[in-house]
Amino acid sequence: MKPIKIAVIGGGSSYTPELVEGIIQRSQIIPLSELALVDVEAGRHKLEIIAALTRRMLDRHGLDHVTVTAHYSPDEAIKGASFVLTQLRVGQLPARAADERLGLKYGLLGQETTGVGGFAKALRTIPVLLDIAHKVERLAPEAWIINFSNPAGVITEAVSRYSKAKIIGLCNVPISMHHMIANMLQRPYQDVQLRFAGLNHMVWVHQVLVNGRDETGQVLELLCNGAELTMNNIKEEPWPPEFLQALGAIPCPYHRYFYQTGKMLQEEKEIAASKGTRAEQVMQVERELFELYADPKLDHKPAQLSFRGGSFYSEVALELISAIHNNLGTQLVVNTANRGAIIGLPDDAVIEANCIVDAQGAHPLAFGHLPDSMSALTQQVKAFERLTIEAAVHGDRKVALLALVTHPLIGDAALDSTLLNEILEINHMYLSQFKR
Amino acid sequence: MKPIKIAVIGGGSSYTPELVEGIIQRSQIIPLSELALVDVEAGRHKLEIIAALTRRMLDRHGLDHVTVTAHYSPDEAIKGASFVLTQLRVGQLPARAADERLGLKYGLLGQETTGVGGFAKALRTIPVLLDIAHKVERLAPEAWIINFSNPAGVITEAVSRYSKAKIIGLCNVPISMHHMIANMLQRPYQDVQLRFAGLNHMVWVHQVLVNGRDETGQVLELLCNGAELTMNNIKEEPWPPEFLQALGAIPCPYHRYFYQTGKMLQEEKEIAASKGTRAEQVMQVERELFELYADPKLDHKPAQLSFRGGSFYSEVALELISAIHNNLGTQLVVNTANRGAIIGLPDDAVIEANCIVDAQGAHPLAFGHLPDSMSALTQQVKAFERLTIEAAVHGDRKVALLALVTHPLIGDAALDSTLLNEILEINHMYLSQFKR
Amino acid sequence: MKPIKIAVIGGGSSYTPELVEGIIQRSQIIPLSELALVDVEAGRHKLEIIAALTRRMLDRHGLDHVTVTAHYSPDEAIKGASFVLTQLRVGQLPARAADERLGLKYGLLGQETTGVGGFAKALRTIPVLLDIAHKVERLAPEAWIINFSNPAGVITEAVSRYSKAKIIGLCNVPISMHHMIANMLQRPYQDVQLRFAGLNHMVWVHQVLVNGRDETGQVLELLCNGAELTMNNIKEEPWPPEFLQALGAIPCPYHRYFYQTGKMLQEEKEIAASKGTRAEQVMQVERELFELYADPKLDHKPAQLSFRGGSFYSEVALELISAIHNNLGTQLVVNTANRGAIIGLPDDAVIEANCIVDAQGAHPLAFGHLPDSMSALTQQVKAFERLTIEAAVHGDRKVALLALVTHPLIGDAALDSTLLNEILEINHMYLSQFKR
Amino acid sequence: MKPIKIAVIGGGSSYTPELVEGIIQRSQIIPLSELALVDVEAGRHKLEIIAALTRRMLDRHGLDHVTVTAHYSPDEAIKGASFVLTQLRVGQLPARAADERLGLKYGLLGQETTGVGGFAKALRTIPVLLDIAHKVERLAPEAWIINFSNPAGVITEAVSRYSKAKIIGLCNVPISMHHMIANMLQRPYQDVQLRFAGLNHMVWVHQVLVNGRDETGQVLELLCNGAELTMNNIKEEPWPPEFLQALGAIPCPYHRYFYQTGKMLQEEKEIAASKGTRAEQVMQVERELFELYADPKLDHKPAQLSFRGGSFYSEVALELISAIHNNLGTQLVVNTANRGAIIGLPDDAVIEANCIVDAQGAHPLAFGHLPDSMSALTQQVKAFERLTIEAAVHGDRKVALLALVTHPLIGDAALDSTLLNEILEINHMYLSQFKR
Repeated sequence: MKPIKIAVIGGGSSYTPELVEGIIQRSQIIPLSELALVDVEAGRHKLEIIAALTRRMLDRHGLDHVTVTAHYSPDEAIKGASFVLTQLRVGQLPARAADERLGLKYGLLGQETTGVGGFAKALRTIPVLLDIAHKVERLAPEAWIINFSNPAGVITEAVSRYSKAKIIGLCNVPISMHHMIANMLQRPYQDVQLRFAGLNHMVWVHQVLVNGRDETGQVLELLCNGAELTMNNIKEEPWPPEFLQALGAIPCPYHRYFYQTGKMLQEEKEIAASKGTRAEQVMQVERELFELYADPKLDHKPAQLSFRGGSFYSEVALELISAIHNNLGTQLVVNTANRGAIIGLPDDAVIEANCIVDAQGAHPLAFGHLPDSMSALTQQVKAFERLTIEAAVHGDRKVALLALVTHPLIGDAALDSTLLNEILEINHMYLSQFKR
Repeated sequence: MKPIKIAVIGGGSSYTPELVEGIIQRSQIIPLSELALVDVEAGRHKLEIIAALTRRMLDRHGLDHVTVTAHYSPDEAIKGASFVLTQLRVGQLPARAADERLGLKYGLLGQETTGVGGFAKALRTIPVLLDIAHKVERLAPEAWIINFSNPAGVITEAVSRYSKAKIIGLCNVPISMHHMIANMLQRPYQDVQLRFAGLNHMVWVHQVLVNGRDETGQVLELLCNGAELTMNNIKEEPWPPEFLQALGAIPCPYHRYFYQTGKMLQEEKEIAASKGTRAEQVMQVERELFELYADPKLDHKPAQLSFRGGSFYSEVALELISAIHNNLGTQLVVNTANRGAIIGLPDDAVIEANCIVDAQGAHPLAFGHLPDSMSALTQQVKAFERLTIEAAVHGDRKVALLALVTHPLIGDAALDSTLLNEILEINHMYLSQFKR
Repeated sequence: MKPIKIAVIGGGSSYTPELVEGIIQRSQIIPLSELALVDVEAGRHKLEIIAALTRRMLDRHGLDHVTVTAHYSPDEAIKGASFVLTQLRVGQLPARAADERLGLKYGLLGQETTGVGGFAKALRTIPVLLDIAHKVERLAPEAWIINFSNPAGVITEAVSRYSKAKIIGLCNVPISMHHMIANMLQRPYQDVQLRFAGLNHMVWVHQVLVNGRDETGQVLELLCNGAELTMNNIKEEPWPPEFLQALGAIPCPYHRYFYQTGKMLQEEKEIAASKGTRAEQVMQVERELFELYADPKLDHKPAQLSFRGGSFYSEVALELISAIHNNLGTQLVVNTANRGAIIGLPDDAVIEANCIVDAQGAHPLAFGHLPDSMSALTQQVKAFERLTIEAAVHGDRKVALLALVTHPLIGDAALDSTLLNEILEINHMYLSQFKR
Repeated sequence: MKPIKIAVIGGGSSYTPELVEGIIQRSQIIPLSELALVDVEAGRHKLEIIAALTRRMLDRHGLDHVTVTAHYSPDEAIKGASFVLTQLRVGQLPARAADERLGLKYGLLGQETTGVGGFAKALRTIPVLLDIAHKVERLAPEAWIINFSNPAGVITEAVSRYSKAKIIGLCNVPISMHHMIANMLQRPYQDVQLRFAGLNHMVWVHQVLVNGRDETGQVLELLCNGAELTMNNIKEEPWPPEFLQALGAIPCPYHRYFYQTGKMLQEEKEIAASKGTRAEQVMQVERELFELYADPKLDHKPAQLSFRGGSFYSEVALELISAIHNNLGTQLVVNTANRGAIIGLPDDAVIEANCIVDAQGAHPLAFGHLPDSMSALTQQVKAFERLTIEAAVHGDRKVALLALVTHPLIGDAALDSTLLNEILEINHMYLSQFKR
């Protein structure tokens, strides 16, 4: 097997040890030669801590032949890479906290991947990702970009439409739902198959199969009777049974933002008042994590990382890398261009769905039509995403305003431009594409 | 010219004198032989008043050869008719008032053609209209149903998909916008052409032409500078200039429900508290109108009718009848099946758009794609409409619940079935299709 | 009314007197100030004859205020024009004759608008028309190009996709069918309406209305019983009755090439052997016409022109010009971009269908789906057209080969490139876009 | 593993020993309990021979626990089956020979799966298959029909649209191409992956991957340089290199009928004159095979069967059965409903493409748009197929006529109904759906 180089943009993230653990577990199938960690100059301290911890983790498992390098500009890291993982966060957690506080100020859900928060994050992130993609085109044209940066679906679509670099978007929601549903059914993970189709953070499970038998009805029944299906960063709010039966599919945890807007907003306000917004909480977790990571005796992923929220991230990332590198044809749930798979969405719209992944990338399984009710929400959110991409790429205020008004969680709250003005003002250092 | 018979279902409506006035004005091009007025037994008193007034109005203009008949079941009226006008209101104004009050109770816009009010009205009206359509199939298979019953787009689609009767839906919004925009430009009505595309009560003017020259920009500019474009039953709330310029099209007055939800709801609450809901106000207007109508000396449409809100109704109705009867190929804005005119909507979805109308009916002009932002809203409202039709035709509670959750003005307020239960309870005498 | 200038590219054509006659008849509604005739240097003699005849014809009807100018490059003619009529023939009739002879050599129908002849003519004509369109963009950006150059649908699509100039394509087939069907029904032209949808020279009449009543069945019956429906340049070959009834629509005369290929080819071979190919016959007609035209006493269109084949050309051209200039909203059958009108064809595919024509151009009426059998042929010919356009614009041999193989009248006869090589060789002076 | 019963409709076919050999080889993964062979009464002698040979083959490999039963009506065989294999031939080989001779009489390619032969066979077979499908609905609603009966794509679509039974269509062309291309590249079969999309017997290989690397160009190069890619029942006729490069994909052997019509027809005529038509040759082969099969000492598949033409049939059939029974998610090339996989074809059109097969059936990978040239041919043949299905199901002569005229290998030869009349006459004993 040809050894490969992986570049990690945003390598100073507290998630990186999770990724490294995954690399160690799969060292037989992913023959790594170099792990190139990249971060911004401002993150030098963190990146040095992460690079040192990575070195210790690899050494402990006898992977001393793997080179670990740290970079403060992406070019050297990208050169020669087979995979470029993008897990960066423009403006870091303070920018995210500002998004959340801004949302609350306007009485809006300000979550980082949807609503006002997702919008602001997309505006900040798309230009940076496109810049990286253009470097990949030049320096490593055969490489695959594996994108985790949120909003993952929007970012992946922006890159796939505005660059020639190859990209697949990833999220841990599908695999988390898979584990949760298997647990709920008291079945081993591998006995359970799920059929997903939708958009990132707005995906439904349309069918649950247990050893090939359709058990969707049983899962809906369990959920109606109080079984939980959530992730540790989203408030559990049970689904009304009649609604769930009418829907006939299993919403993802993030669907609560769309279907239970009022309750979620109330909850978010209360938590923000008591414990701080999600970003503010995470900042505290991060401080603690980096203290642990800096300990020169630490040579494994500490248990505390699990509170951070990214469970299974390394699992999906490395399964995807292995499927491509080893040309496996594995069925995975990823974000990729539609090409007719969900009828009624544009061919180049990025969707989240079951795909076959091999050396040529991700091939979605044809799904057909979404039911009317789901199609309506999907069309609306996809229109928001496409308007956001246009606004971010061209720095177009008018399109940005339409994007906000189109979002189901914003609507008339954005109509008079005040909200947009404030977003552009707060983020002006990241939004040079918008003329002031 | 072959003389024709027109049946008016809901003939006891206070609007009927408006229609009769139109008939008188166009007696040269629409050679009427009989006007058959139909209403329910409970409306006998009103229908007698209307029939007598109609007789006096016709006689005054020398149209004594036109027979006026009153019916309390539709069969005789439909037999031999060339046109069947449906302007009925199941449950009368009290049912509408109940819808409005119910909406306010849940903090929702309860307008009669959209949101919770439009939903309830559709459930009540669809079975009755389908029943009439099936009678038309049998008794007057060549007749055209001209539907004004609200929600006009939904009702028209239900009939066109679930019956073989020929139907076109009508609304006075497009013609009213046409008059208002011509006034705004200080141009004669006939010098101005508008290009409409959307759904009933959710239609945009995409282009304003003055003698063929595109003056859309000028109209947007006027609206940005405070020109008003509203109807006397919808609160004028100016459009923020940047939003209007970003949209690049002129929303219809009813779009305020979707784009300015918060303000409209606030306004509606205040008016309901002070003057009563719209239906409650209209009930007072109606009482006064019928007092006038009953005066045996009255032989013309009284000026007070203009407060009722249906301006230009008779103009569009009779232009449509003339276009069909005289095979004119006139360009009119009506509600008819899409057939590809707006790309991305189903072929059989009823849309509101510029159509050529001749003896074969309405042929929409191909419009192409709606811009992303408008397409999203259109898809969402059309999904609500189709779910509502399914629910109304099949009496399906689950689909009804999805319809409510899908509506942009309802959403999570309907999630736990309480709202649906109350709608079905309040209207149970009209909803025999739903098993209790 | 603002006086207008019309430029005629290919003004030295023998058809021009027909056009001039139309202008004279409509001088009240089309207030002409200048008629600018353009031709190539090689056609100077003919153009001088035509310009002089035009002058005499206009003077005879008191239109001496209309300037007539002759040009040997298009720039001056285009400048300031409101309409640019393109009726040019690259390579003149000898190139057409070569196409026809080439077709016969390979046992193929070599007609000038389809098959091998249409293909060669498109390759020759597209670059010239695009060059004119780019001049129009610069010199008269508000002008409409009215294209008659064959293959009219292909040329119109090439210009509308590869230039910003406004263009509508015209053909005399629909109006000729309209006249013939009215005659067949013994009805005045204006009592009969036809519903067309298809491609240029491959269009069907889907519905015949007489004063709004559907009489399609009667016309099919008449055709089954031997009524003729043909044009004087296409052999009359009756349609088998069962086929016509199965089709349920009226094919255009050119459909015989597709549906009766064997018989048409046989016929064409016989005529070529006896009287010469169509182009060879026309050359003789043209010589005779120009002798007449040169007569300084001639001041009207001579009757002999009717043998040339372009009946009603001036009628459709001037109705179209009037509909645009006077913003009439007339229903005409023209070639314009699909925009969803025929479901299943690309939005930018040029179709031939009933359109509303006003100052903003042509708006097709939504037609919906073509029946399976017609859709298949339409898809195939449209694919040929699009491949031909790509080949012509980019000078791409491979795409040219696929275009030939895709055409229903060529297919395997082109598979080994011999035919393509010969086309490129014979026409090499016109095909500089193809590298040799 | 739950033991399963397989029913084989048309079990008396000479192919059955091939299938039995496959069952023996895969007895570990397909735990067979009963093999129920069904044939018509007229084939009793053959079925007895086959049943006895099957028994001997199974016994030889220790599979004496597998019951072998023979049936002369399908009901008992279908009851309790997990898989129903349909490999029947209505009218046997004489009907096929008649098709071929009829085609030649009219100068048409008369192959059994396309053109006039495929049409006649579809008319004969669809009612019989639908009858079986309705029995499966009643007697074994969980069973999968695995259809080999030709024309396999047409039959599969007819059943999937007109019955509720679950069906997948199979053909040995894709697997044969896979083996041939692997040989051509001198690579093991499993190192090579092919991406197919098209219709049955009209499918292209769009991409050849060797261990995930795109080697399509190399395969095209080899084919241009004379490498052969054919099947033993189709004449090898090399592809012109420039055409193949222009196409950029690898046609299947049956594409020669469409792309090389003239040569194939010439060849077929010559062979028919010398050796007899394909069916006539096969009849001789069959006689010899059954003599061998009847030998009580024979207990294995004789080598002579390979001349029959069905190589790899058992391989694809049993891989498919295993993928379903064991819920494997294997990537196989089968015939199933489109559901958006090839954009532009109806959702319910059966296509041939790479699918993931598991216990829930076949899920096609989204392919996107076919290139223009291939799309045109596909649309045309699919229209023929859908018209044929309508004609066969409803016994509609008019639609049958349109189907013939729409087929690229028939066209004008069918225009005057003579050909249709003769097909209906010759096959009248099988076509009770057509009133005489």
